Amino acid sequence: MLHPTRVIQFGLGPIGSAVARHILERSALKLVGAVDIALAKVGKDTGEVLGLDRRLGIPVSGSLAEALAHGPADVVTHCTGSYADLFTPQILEILGAGLSVVSTSEELSFPWLAHAAEAKLIDDAARSAGRAVLATGVNPGFLMDTLPLTLTAICQRVDHITVTRTQNASNRRGPFQAKIGSGMTVDEFRAKMAAGRMGHVGLVESAGMVLSTLGKQMVRFETSVEPVVTEKPVKTPYFNVAPGRVRGLRQVAHAYAPEGEFLTLVFVAALDEATDQDVVTIEGKPTLEVTLKGTNGDIATVAITVNAIRRVLAAQPGLATMADLPVITAW
Amino acid sequence: MLHPTRVIQFGLGPIGSAVARHILERSALKLVGAVDIALAKVGKDTGEVLGLDRRLGIPVSGSLAEALAHGPADVVTHCTGSYADLFTPQILEILGAGLSVVSTSEELSFPWLAHAAEAKLIDDAARSAGRAVLATGVNPGFLMDTLPLTLTAICQRVDHITVTRTQNASNRRGPFQAKIGSGMTVDEFRAKMAAGRMGHVGLVESAGMVLSTLGKQMVRFETSVEPVVTEKPVKTPYFNVAPGRVRGLRQVAHAYAPEGEFLTLVFVAALDEATDQDVVTIEGKPTLEVTLKGTNGDIATVAITVNAIRRVLAAQPGLATMADLPVITAW
Repeated sequence: MLHPTRVIQFGLGPIGSAVARHILERSALKLVGAVDIALAKVGKDTGEVLGLDRRLGIPVSGSLAEALAHGPADVVTHCTGSYADLFTPQILEILGAGLSVVSTSEELSFPWLAHAAEAKLIDDAARSAGRAVLATGVNPGFLMDTLPLTLTAICQRVDHITVTRTQNASNRRGPFQAKIGSGMTVDEFRAKMAAGRMGHVGLVESAGMVLSTLGKQMVRFETSVEPVVTEKPVKTPYFNVAPGRVRGLRQVAHAYAPEGEFLTLVFVAALDEATDQDVVTIEGKPTLEVTLKGTNGDIATVAITVNAIRRVLAAQPGLATMADLPVITAW
Repeated sequence: MLHPTRVIQFGLGPIGSAVARHILERSALKLVGAVDIALAKVGKDTGEVLGLDRRLGIPVSGSLAEALAHGPADVVTHCTGSYADLFTPQILEILGAGLSVVSTSEELSFPWLAHAAEAKLIDDAARSAGRAVLATGVNPGFLMDTLPLTLTAICQRVDHITVTRTQNASNRRGPFQAKIGSGMTVDEFRAKMAAGRMGHVGLVESAGMVLSTLGKQMVRFETSVEPVVTEKPVKTPYFNVAPGRVRGLRQVAHAYAPEGEFLTLVFVAALDEATDQDVVTIEGKPTLEVTLKGTNGDIATVAITVNAIRRVLAAQPGLATMADLPVITAW
């Protein structure tokens, strides 16, 4: 039997920490390093930073080079930020060190439309390194792209796809509750939205992957966000929201092919939301309606990130998307 | 632009004819030949045999060699029979002619457990020919294997999977209604079952693909079939079923890993069945429940067979399964 795959966790925020904890549960994987830039974490034992009741003997490193000085690795699970300006130098650094990458950065999941220059840089670097890079997660990476694509396999004709993800954010981590505007006034919400970098990231990447894989040109993409306002007080471990304030958001995207609207993505995430399910509707021959219950976003993103490792290690060098690799499964 | 992919349809039964008709609807594909052994079809124009209102200028050939004498092809869509003893020489002949294969033969979808010798023969022949072979369909090929595998991507742990497919067979083709025992007495049904080769074929293949891809050894496989008896008369274009007679079947399979039962497959197909849906339940972390409506078996099998062509043409030579190829989609 081969040695366990050696993994460095890059980024120890809530998702990165959960990925690291899950890597520790998987017998075929071995956590060999952890990187974070937060001064409060660097130098501490990774077990302590992960909230475990034991030391791991792995200090949190302030840089990848420092982590690699402790010993070699095969792959990096990269969980830092959503945006290309942040992750591009990090991914290039990892590839420069000769390691494969599974990332949760939303804009890397299908960067060929919105960030083509960065995509080309990363693809070239991956080919030079002889390694593969994949960004995935529950969304983007699964619910609004890979899953509907998978379902079109049994369609002779696809006229339109709608994916509606409705989440009760009361079950989610604090930063997620913050990201959807919990506790803000409507004016604060609109001001934050106008300033950008709030709300769900990844709709244009999901749309790009779906249309491109189905052989359709995306000629227009529109997106809008509205606050969901609470009528009664809402309390979570992270927020107390008074009536009239924001408990979440409803974000809608429309992607158009030359012949008309082809894909509608609806993302609803709000505290105390009664519905907690995903629905994929494919209009065509046949028309399919698929309903999913239980796709908890945090558990799911951690799972697919770790589950992707074996496919990424076996992949052709380059920047891959979920549509390029054989089915990613538990293992 | 490349020339359209040239396809020969091998087998002009109900599914093969529907595949051929769908190929004619796809602009990237060109039907260049048709093969069937039925003397009533050989020599006739394929358009006539397909029930079209126009001639295609393609005569139905009695053999692949005869079809190829009319001109070259790239791939064969192969829809003849479920069983390895029938399809193995046919697949070897197609590979011998240097063509790729997409087949609907159930036992070829994951033959490595039940038909390992034939699988090895076909895999070797495919590698020698530099071509890929894939067998797919809605089931096996999608609902009870590829789809649950895809869903495990977002699971950190999978304890047990159940897939229940319930079909109202009143919407299906005549041979399908016959295959599930429609119109038989219970004694006739049990006698036919005991003689073998009735009921749904493919449960052991789906189970093999799921367990193998998830890295689990299948240590035991059990299957049973019971008739579904009607209480009131049932009428379809193909059958009149009197009360007390069989309107369909309920087939159940249990697949065991060393630690216990891991996969339960329930296949219900009956005339006038009130429910017409598929449910995939994955117990684990998280527990998922996914419900599908609209997966009409005949439309879906035709779709996935034709949709698979582009992945098979791009695949590594050899006998592939649905778990080996990038996501098959409409295109």
